[in-house]
Amino acid sequence: MSKNPETRIEADPDVPVIRMTREFAAKPEQLLRAHTDPDLFAQWVGPDGMTTRIEHWDARTGGSWRYVASRDGEEYAFYGCFHEVRPDRIVQTFTFEGEPDSVALETLWFEDLGDGRTRLRTQSLVDSFQGRDAWLRSGMETGVNEGYAKLDGMLADGAV
Amino acid sequence: MSKNPETRIEADPDVPVIRMTREFAAKPEQLLRAHTDPDLFAQWVGPDGMTTRIEHWDARTGGSWRYVASRDGEEYAFYGCFHEVRPDRIVQTFTFEGEPDSVALETLWFEDLGDGRTRLRTQSLVDSFQGRDAWLRSGMETGVNEGYAKLDGMLADGAV
Repeated sequence: MSKNPETRIEADPDVPVIRMTREFAAKPEQLLRAHTDPDLFAQWVGPDGMTTRIEHWDARTGGSWRYVASRDGEEYAFYGCFHEVRPDRIVQTFTFEGEPDSVALETLWFEDLGDGRTRLRTQSLVDSFQGRDAWLRSGMETGVNEGYAKLDGMLADGAV
Repeated sequence: MSKNPETRIEADPDVPVIRMTREFAAKPEQLLRAHTDPDLFAQWVGPDGMTTRIEHWDARTGGSWRYVASRDGEEYAFYGCFHEVRPDRIVQTFTFEGEPDSVALETLWFEDLGDGRTRLRTQSLVDSFQGRDAWLRSGMETGVNEGYAKLDGMLADGAV
């Protein structure tokens, strides 16, 4: 049985927020690195079969980022800015360029569980329940779970 | 009677958002400049008697900002990043360093009304109603109205 169960994905009943929780066999600084080093991030983010090309990356408080995901000749671009990068938390914005008027405010927390394990908690905040629920129905769960499984593999291989 | 009534400030009933609406005797590009040029911005933002010192300012998509407001020897610092700056819209993050875990996602729209007038609409999104309502009770209305009145004066003087 896997020590790393599926990601728990929850829609908040009161605010237009999606919360996710997942544990990793990693120290907090490894998870921070996996989310801030562009070469590492590009290797695990997104569903299987998707390739990520980093176009711009400055993972510091006040920095910004842009990447293009591609599969079967289709490209999907995303961009945002890093509001804050600190050892236990990243706050950043997120826009899919196919929906240029939509913006999410994302927060990631790295919670040290000891014994080389860390709980990742994330929160994505948008300005309407309609937008939040459309996102939940978009199949994001597959990309999230497949991406984190790739990250599990990189952690097991000592790549992070 | 003033052609520029008080700012309309509304708390959304369904999502933790504060919306503001106000008209200015200005073209959209003047309002954009008033919000992106650091020397202009520092002259009008905040309540009367408060002085603003810009510490960092890069008002472009992917840029960031930080400023310190001071009055009677007390200092209040704020920072964030610019998710997007375009002629009709600014999206940025906002944190008051006195509450370092709180972040707002702010959107400003500049709507051309013709005849040299522009409607400014703003939206501040946070992740809880408690945080939103505490902000509304903090006296932000005074700062907003006094700040925009200073901007009216600068527009009338041809300073923007």
